[in-house]
Amino acid sequence: MTGRFDAVDIIRAKRDKGTLSAEQIAWTIAAYTQGEIAEEQMAALAMAILLNGMNRAELSAWTQAMIDSGDTLDFSTLKDAAGRPLRTTDKHSTGGVGDKVTLPLAPLVAVFGVAVPQLSGRGLGHTGGTLDKLETIPGWRAEVGTAELMQQLAEVGAVVCAPGSGLAPADKKLYALRDVTGTVDSIPLIASSIMSKKIAEGTSALVLDVKVGSGAFMKDLDSARTLARTMVGLGLDAGVRTVALLTDMDTPLGLTAGNAIEVAEAVEVLAGGGPDDVVQLTVRLAEEMLAAAGITDADPAAALRDGRAMDVWRRMISAQGGDPDAALPAAKEHDVVLAEHDGMLTRLDAMGVGLAAWRLGAGRARKEDAVQGGAGVRLHVKPGQEVRAGQPLMTLLSDTPEAFARARDALDGAVSIVSGAPAPVRKLILDRVDGQSGLVIP
Amino acid sequence: MTGRFDAVDIIRAKRDKGTLSAEQIAWTIAAYTQGEIAEEQMAALAMAILLNGMNRAELSAWTQAMIDSGDTLDFSTLKDAAGRPLRTTDKHSTGGVGDKVTLPLAPLVAVFGVAVPQLSGRGLGHTGGTLDKLETIPGWRAEVGTAELMQQLAEVGAVVCAPGSGLAPADKKLYALRDVTGTVDSIPLIASSIMSKKIAEGTSALVLDVKVGSGAFMKDLDSARTLARTMVGLGLDAGVRTVALLTDMDTPLGLTAGNAIEVAEAVEVLAGGGPDDVVQLTVRLAEEMLAAAGITDADPAAALRDGRAMDVWRRMISAQGGDPDAALPAAKEHDVVLAEHDGMLTRLDAMGVGLAAWRLGAGRARKEDAVQGGAGVRLHVKPGQEVRAGQPLMTLLSDTPEAFARARDALDGAVSIVSGAPAPVRKLILDRVDGQSGLVIP
Repeated sequence: MTGRFDAVDIIRAKRDKGTLSAEQIAWTIAAYTQGEIAEEQMAALAMAILLNGMNRAELSAWTQAMIDSGDTLDFSTLKDAAGRPLRTTDKHSTGGVGDKVTLPLAPLVAVFGVAVPQLSGRGLGHTGGTLDKLETIPGWRAEVGTAELMQQLAEVGAVVCAPGSGLAPADKKLYALRDVTGTVDSIPLIASSIMSKKIAEGTSALVLDVKVGSGAFMKDLDSARTLARTMVGLGLDAGVRTVALLTDMDTPLGLTAGNAIEVAEAVEVLAGGGPDDVVQLTVRLAEEMLAAAGITDADPAAALRDGRAMDVWRRMISAQGGDPDAALPAAKEHDVVLAEHDGMLTRLDAMGVGLAAWRLGAGRARKEDAVQGGAGVRLHVKPGQEVRAGQPLMTLLSDTPEAFARARDALDGAVSIVSGAPAPVRKLILDRVDGQSGLVIP
Repeated sequence: MTGRFDAVDIIRAKRDKGTLSAEQIAWTIAAYTQGEIAEEQMAALAMAILLNGMNRAELSAWTQAMIDSGDTLDFSTLKDAAGRPLRTTDKHSTGGVGDKVTLPLAPLVAVFGVAVPQLSGRGLGHTGGTLDKLETIPGWRAEVGTAELMQQLAEVGAVVCAPGSGLAPADKKLYALRDVTGTVDSIPLIASSIMSKKIAEGTSALVLDVKVGSGAFMKDLDSARTLARTMVGLGLDAGVRTVALLTDMDTPLGLTAGNAIEVAEAVEVLAGGGPDDVVQLTVRLAEEMLAAAGITDADPAAALRDGRAMDVWRRMISAQGGDPDAALPAAKEHDVVLAEHDGMLTRLDAMGVGLAAWRLGAGRARKEDAVQGGAGVRLHVKPGQEVRAGQPLMTLLSDTPEAFARARDALDGAVSIVSGAPAPVRKLILDRVDGQSGLVIP
């Protein structure tokens, strides 16, 4: 890496609303990864990008450069146990409260002969992490080597595991920088961060679940739609069949927000039960993932009812050392939140519940923190239900009872009970974005 | 310094076009000076300020915070040799090619009983530094302690010296950061950088010489006027009587660009001769500095003609160890640039001449580099003169003859000779800005 470009020239070009060439972008990301561009220079560039934007060509080049900064996975030669070529498909959620959908979804899709290599993360802040949830299953481990990953895909069809550390190192470095420099809230930078990881993971079909609402990163439908269109555009530019659903995150998904309690709820769904919204979203995402992999005649709802998805789930958990029949950890203490008066529950704010679960010990403030397996919030009612004064609204769960007061603070104002109000209408799936949706980059 | 504010909140506020409070700004500059705000955080903030601006209240607070980051000088109790209170006045030039005006100006103003504590810098890039020029005088030293500075002001009336290292350390740190992060070209940041140093230097009256044109930092009159109005506003907000002149820098000032050759030209002016433009600007700036100090009936031109300014100059140089009669260093080699054809010299570009002088050894690329005392460019003609083919236009001077080719490259396109063209009109003083000019901050 010789100084083919000058970092200050590149910063100034973007500062002055110029367009960066693919060569400039490739050099910038490579030089940053190798420490030739200093953190303060990338901080200035990130702020200029946040304020002045990138066009679709710049953003595709930026995403590709982040992919090229590290290793990539390749599933193109994957075969099933019978030696037949195996298609893969993948899902990514931008993060929400109570979003345990990956757990039933990965085995459900695998039922139909499409492999799901689902590389997932741990939680940070008020949204939970899929790996934190699965790690409450005794014996289960998130770390899976590449050879083992390939073997499990061939034999079981589904893997949920931690990504290898060599994938998109530029994204890791840049994300840590953005976190301390006020440059997180940039749709081009968010979209390229997500898509560089997903494309490096070798996915050939991808369904994005872009959450919208108080508990999501994107608070309004317009910005969520812009993010979705941007990500779909980046996926298509990289040859990945990509669609996005915009889904509601004003209220938590399902009746649980935590770790072990979310696993238990996912198992209910795999057993043919579970909350309606979790089932509805799981089935719809399965249909989209299968369609992206070329299968349009599957009936995922039936595979939840008849136990085929549960069967894959049990083998998937066992393959990574977990005992699907073991008891899950339970919180030592609980605290029940009661309705203060009669009326219609018109609102149960996802951010409030997410923050409460976090403060109860289900989430972490820093990467190195541990989480409590049993902590979280169990909801007893959802918006649209009538409640009576004194009726339990939710149960707070924690090993550390001193956390209850701070969790209740987080819930202050998160619950609206209105006497005589009509039931609010919740639309779970708000929109769908694909290559025909008019892809725009802000 | 406890974390009364959060750096990321402050970056995000300015990113989102918000207004920072004086308390937030004071905390930011103090925390940055002490290393509590990281370089990458200040880089992101500087880019947000460059793109979103600061209003006058923010900028005054920013300037004051930079002053408060270090020591300040106080001349309010200064007395002359006879024990009478001594007023002070100061000048700052934004930097140009051939700008040796400080040398005759400081002693000229002192003739009229107003003290001139002129803290100056070294050159970086294509514009020369006053200290580099004076250091070609054998024995002269730039470093002067505070007590010595006060004594010399009382006894001689004028000091040109290096600022103490404790003045506005936040500005030093921020300037170095801006230099590598593409955040130099911000009028609020330029204005606060200049004014924080000048105000910390304890000046009570200040005349700004804002250069405009190819050889200046500000290339056009509008941006120079905005910078001038911003700086005058900051000066007035800090209680400093401040005015600014906008002066031409499309062509070099005088007939020399270098170090020793500029000192020689300054001595010519002090002897009552010298190029018209240098004399005109020196006299006008002296009038403005004296007026800012309350003296409106002085005749600086007479003090150049009758030797009074030369007298102060000789005492000023001697007081700092210099020998005003010693021979100045001369370059070992020279190379004469000839006119290629007959015609009117319509243009002699200041940036081209400045770059040539720099490459000849008169300037430095890095702070730690040394400069050649004798190097530079001596002009034989100025725009508005007719030339004949083969007539010398300028002489390049250097100890390193291999520099001549690169200096000639810098002059490529810098000279326009047009047959039959009328003489171009050069207006040296383009505008004047004071408290009545309508102060705007972009």
